[in-house]
Amino acid sequence: MADTISMNSLSLDAARRILAAAEAKAVAMGVPSCICVSDPSGDPIISVRMDGAPRMSADIAKNKAWTVASFLGIPTDKWWPTIESEPALVHGLTNTPRLIVFGGGLPIHIGGALVGAIGVSGGSAEQDREIASAGADLLS
Amino acid sequence: MADTISMNSLSLDAARRILAAAEAKAVAMGVPSCICVSDPSGDPIISVRMDGAPRMSADIAKNKAWTVASFLGIPTDKWWPTIESEPALVHGLTNTPRLIVFGGGLPIHIGGALVGAIGVSGGSAEQDREIASAGADLLS
Amino acid sequence: MADTISMNSLSLDAARRILAAAEAKAVAMGVPSCICVSDPSGDPIISVRMDGAPRMSADIAKNKAWTVASFLGIPTDKWWPTIESEPALVHGLTNTPRLIVFGGGLPIHIGGALVGAIGVSGGSAEQDREIASAGADLLS
Amino acid sequence: MADTISMNSLSLDAARRILAAAEAKAVAMGVPSCICVSDPSGDPIISVRMDGAPRMSADIAKNKAWTVASFLGIPTDKWWPTIESEPALVHGLTNTPRLIVFGGGLPIHIGGALVGAIGVSGGSAEQDREIASAGADLLS
Repeated sequence: MADTISMNSLSLDAARRILAAAEAKAVAMGVPSCICVSDPSGDPIISVRMDGAPRMSADIAKNKAWTVASFLGIPTDKWWPTIESEPALVHGLTNTPRLIVFGGGLPIHIGGALVGAIGVSGGSAEQDREIASAGADLLS
Repeated sequence: MADTISMNSLSLDAARRILAAAEAKAVAMGVPSCICVSDPSGDPIISVRMDGAPRMSADIAKNKAWTVASFLGIPTDKWWPTIESEPALVHGLTNTPRLIVFGGGLPIHIGGALVGAIGVSGGSAEQDREIASAGADLLS
Repeated sequence: MADTISMNSLSLDAARRILAAAEAKAVAMGVPSCICVSDPSGDPIISVRMDGAPRMSADIAKNKAWTVASFLGIPTDKWWPTIESEPALVHGLTNTPRLIVFGGGLPIHIGGALVGAIGVSGGSAEQDREIASAGADLLS
Repeated sequence: MADTISMNSLSLDAARRILAAAEAKAVAMGVPSCICVSDPSGDPIISVRMDGAPRMSADIAKNKAWTVASFLGIPTDKWWPTIESEPALVHGLTNTPRLIVFGGGLPIHIGGALVGAIGVSGGSAEQDREIASAGADLLS
């Protein structure tokens, strides 16, 4: 069997361009946000708290990126539809530290491989997802 | 009264065979998983993260084994049916650190005595339980 | 600038062979140990607690692997010679959570790239390093 | 007495320019670093992990900025000279969570007021301080 598995990561330069795209969208929407771009292991590469963004959102944005990267690239908004009909998961899984089960976290793929994730927090889950999408779509 | 209480534990060798059985099942099912086999005090003896398994699952697998070993060998899937009709437990108990109330954690008994536990995470709770079962049944 | 950075990781199969080599060395030396092999981001791939190994050593072994992977592949035994003449680091840096500044953690390189790390705990720092070395040298 | 106390904070735009100055210095010195610019309450405004920077350094950089902002703007390298002759502080204070007592954290003042802090980690404490200084001096 192979000794190694390829796990490419976004460079800081690429992460910064992704962040800029998301940030521009947040400005356009008038939703000051916290935004985090992570590598595929979930560790942040770049994080910002925009002027006027909620202070609480910094950790949520970071955790959204981590949730995506730590679970196969699944967008955070896909968790709830998956668990909502199973009360044991609704009440038991949602307490998992750092796991965020609502929108605003998206994977970043290049050439079909997961190379990072973006997490956004500051508006509604729907707004967060739209802002994250502006970043995640940049290099896809 | 006796001065001591006997607490037999799986050896690493046995834990490794149990892990191998669970891992083979995970491969057969196509569900890359994190798998942990603990001793009867809940401390891990051996843990693996299979290639392609969600990174987030490592702690969940460990916590499932801990949950079982730390509460009399009760499988993690038995918790929800026990608490679901008591809102105070549904909302108050599920926040207990490390307690997992959905499937994937099973006891390992030898000669009727609890000698360890296995926790699996990576697929659905049902899949996790099936993989754990392949390990837990090996020596029973 | 490039969008991605290559970050290859040990496969579970390779990690298992590395672990086996270290474990065989621990048996030969008569030093039951906890051994952890991590990926290059510091997350464990496989961890064992050998029969008779100190329970406390499980976290230390894990943290040794993390320390190496999280700081450019520097062996844990290189930290002390680097900081010993600077009291601010001796007293201030050694409190960093998960940072281990004594022997027993080594990098695993393939083709010159850091692909993982191994951490061993259970004996003296010198013994831990020797056991880790048996694993780290396997694929180098 | 007045009902309020003024607490001016760096804007994200200013924090970004400070970060860029520090990052340029890190590139010039060949020391890939983690860099964090915080507001005067110690919460990060922007954080980056440069390509090749130690993963472990992210928290240390953040904690350096926090240490400075949380204690009147005192640079982190001033702590050790202050406490080194008092063993109770050397052994008792350095365990304070998030407190960093070696170089790499500097205050950012505008018009004599503390408006933020910068923390750098990745090289020696001396290098970290030099890189932080390139950022902290930008607007002073």
